[in-house]
Amino acid sequence: MAGTLGEFDRIDRFFKPLSKGCPGALGLSDDAGLLTVPPGRELVVTTDAMVESVHYLAGEPASRLARKLLRVNLSDLAAMGARPIAYTLTTALPAQLGPAWLADLAEGLAADQDLFGLHLLGGDSVSTPGPPLLSVTAFGEVEAGRSLKRSGACIGDRIFVSGTLGDGALGLLAARGDLPRLGSDHREALAARYHLPTPRLDLGRRLVGLATAAMDVSDGLSGDLAHICRASAVGARIRADHVPMSDAALAAIAVDPALHPVALAGGDDYELLFTVPPSAVPAVATVSRALDLPLTNIGEIVAGSETEILDKDGKLLNLKGWEHY
Amino acid sequence: MAGTLGEFDRIDRFFKPLSKGCPGALGLSDDAGLLTVPPGRELVVTTDAMVESVHYLAGEPASRLARKLLRVNLSDLAAMGARPIAYTLTTALPAQLGPAWLADLAEGLAADQDLFGLHLLGGDSVSTPGPPLLSVTAFGEVEAGRSLKRSGACIGDRIFVSGTLGDGALGLLAARGDLPRLGSDHREALAARYHLPTPRLDLGRRLVGLATAAMDVSDGLSGDLAHICRASAVGARIRADHVPMSDAALAAIAVDPALHPVALAGGDDYELLFTVPPSAVPAVATVSRALDLPLTNIGEIVAGSETEILDKDGKLLNLKGWEHY
Repeated sequence: MAGTLGEFDRIDRFFKPLSKGCPGALGLSDDAGLLTVPPGRELVVTTDAMVESVHYLAGEPASRLARKLLRVNLSDLAAMGARPIAYTLTTALPAQLGPAWLADLAEGLAADQDLFGLHLLGGDSVSTPGPPLLSVTAFGEVEAGRSLKRSGACIGDRIFVSGTLGDGALGLLAARGDLPRLGSDHREALAARYHLPTPRLDLGRRLVGLATAAMDVSDGLSGDLAHICRASAVGARIRADHVPMSDAALAAIAVDPALHPVALAGGDDYELLFTVPPSAVPAVATVSRALDLPLTNIGEIVAGSETEILDKDGKLLNLKGWEHY
Repeated sequence: MAGTLGEFDRIDRFFKPLSKGCPGALGLSDDAGLLTVPPGRELVVTTDAMVESVHYLAGEPASRLARKLLRVNLSDLAAMGARPIAYTLTTALPAQLGPAWLADLAEGLAADQDLFGLHLLGGDSVSTPGPPLLSVTAFGEVEAGRSLKRSGACIGDRIFVSGTLGDGALGLLAARGDLPRLGSDHREALAARYHLPTPRLDLGRRLVGLATAAMDVSDGLSGDLAHICRASAVGARIRADHVPMSDAALAAIAVDPALHPVALAGGDDYELLFTVPPSAVPAVATVSRALDLPLTNIGEIVAGSETEILDKDGKLLNLKGWEHY
């Protein structure tokens, strides 16, 4: 937290209130922050950054940006089965983004801090002649040695996904005005999923001790499943027609069937993709009911190293074509 | 660690080797990294970012940038009395910085990881149409409840500083070619101090239980001392002629006496500024001998809220003028 007097003012006014309730933040006025990890737990650390015109369009409200960035990081904690504790924020901002923008940024962070139960621990605030950049490092805790990882999937394990897929990719199109023939309700629902994903923290916590492998779907189903396969030295076979989609996504595909591969391959959904042994399938159903969250079996882990996606007739779909759609 | 295939290649080639020896980094191939904090310890977290043309000049070697950024973060850990464990790295780079630049960056990080005993835990790597930005979040551990802070200085405490001050500010001038009348040995010595500061980690560890307040000198002696005074609700009085300066700094001031206030007010020294009760002064001398590092008493904590700097005749110097020199 070094810099000019202007920076200290900004910290006092916009960021210090976000550290309330976090004694280790030391009021953001020391050289560093302190984090206590209870005995028998370990810390989970993840970091994600967003740059204007690369990860979002200029003119996006600061509060929504802030919430999305926090949620993208929280989704990584969810994928490890961790409970969020705290985060640090680094901003690199051009001079023209003034107090009103910062106030909006802080408002978004405050809202999601409350919602997800974490606090600002520290950060850095620098100026840049380039586009705005926001970076969050999020901290969670998990029972020592029990975090979910990508590497435990075994042959015969069932592959599940939470919620619905495709909303993120279609939501980006909707937000850009590229789905003019879709009804406005559906367009808004998709855009909302793109702008404000829901980190599946409760699900992640309940998958500890149940899932053999897990990750969040941020780059797209096929590519992300390939990460689990590589880390676990296995293959995967999924059925495209089993992949759960929202009413809005199905409506968009009904209007334009060429959007089906976009929905299947697209990222930004931040749902959890996980594997469980067949014996644990009933337990997954119990979790689904308890959380009122669809958890859908979309395929299984097989020998080999390929991620195969089959259509409803069991015919292999061309994965590569989808990824570069 | 989301992104394109190109990003995964970069992680494999340049960053994964930096995570070796850190099992919690999970080979940089999972959603997040894991950190274990031993019982009875707490985690110290600090973050600092650097932007080209704001914090360094274009053309600066990547390895030196990387080392400086890591050291600036380690200096914050030193100021808290912490032992470094790990760090995360976020890079936002324009497309024109290719593999050779990244290889040089990784080489610098590898060198300082070895020197200071920490490992890469994770990070994010994004592209930007703007100037390069590098951000490090560093993690250290300290005995629970015993970290050094800025807030414990008491009236009557002696104020100490490690090493010499002014080299960072004069080093920037030397690096820019602004000290042409100074001998080249001295110019190089000052520039080296500016480019590669030494985080006072061993000193920080030894000050745990000894110092009542501590911080690192990054913004300049007077401003930084004011932080300790504000956090501790005290005042301070120091003697300008007691502030330790290197032979190179003294030579620069001999050539141009107008550089004296620059040296006194300048930042970027990353020495530790700390306070101890009078009874602990002999222990400070013992630490100084053990570390072969000058620790100089430059003044004392007084009642009030002002930071006064006196000349050798006890006359009050105009602090404000110095800060804006």
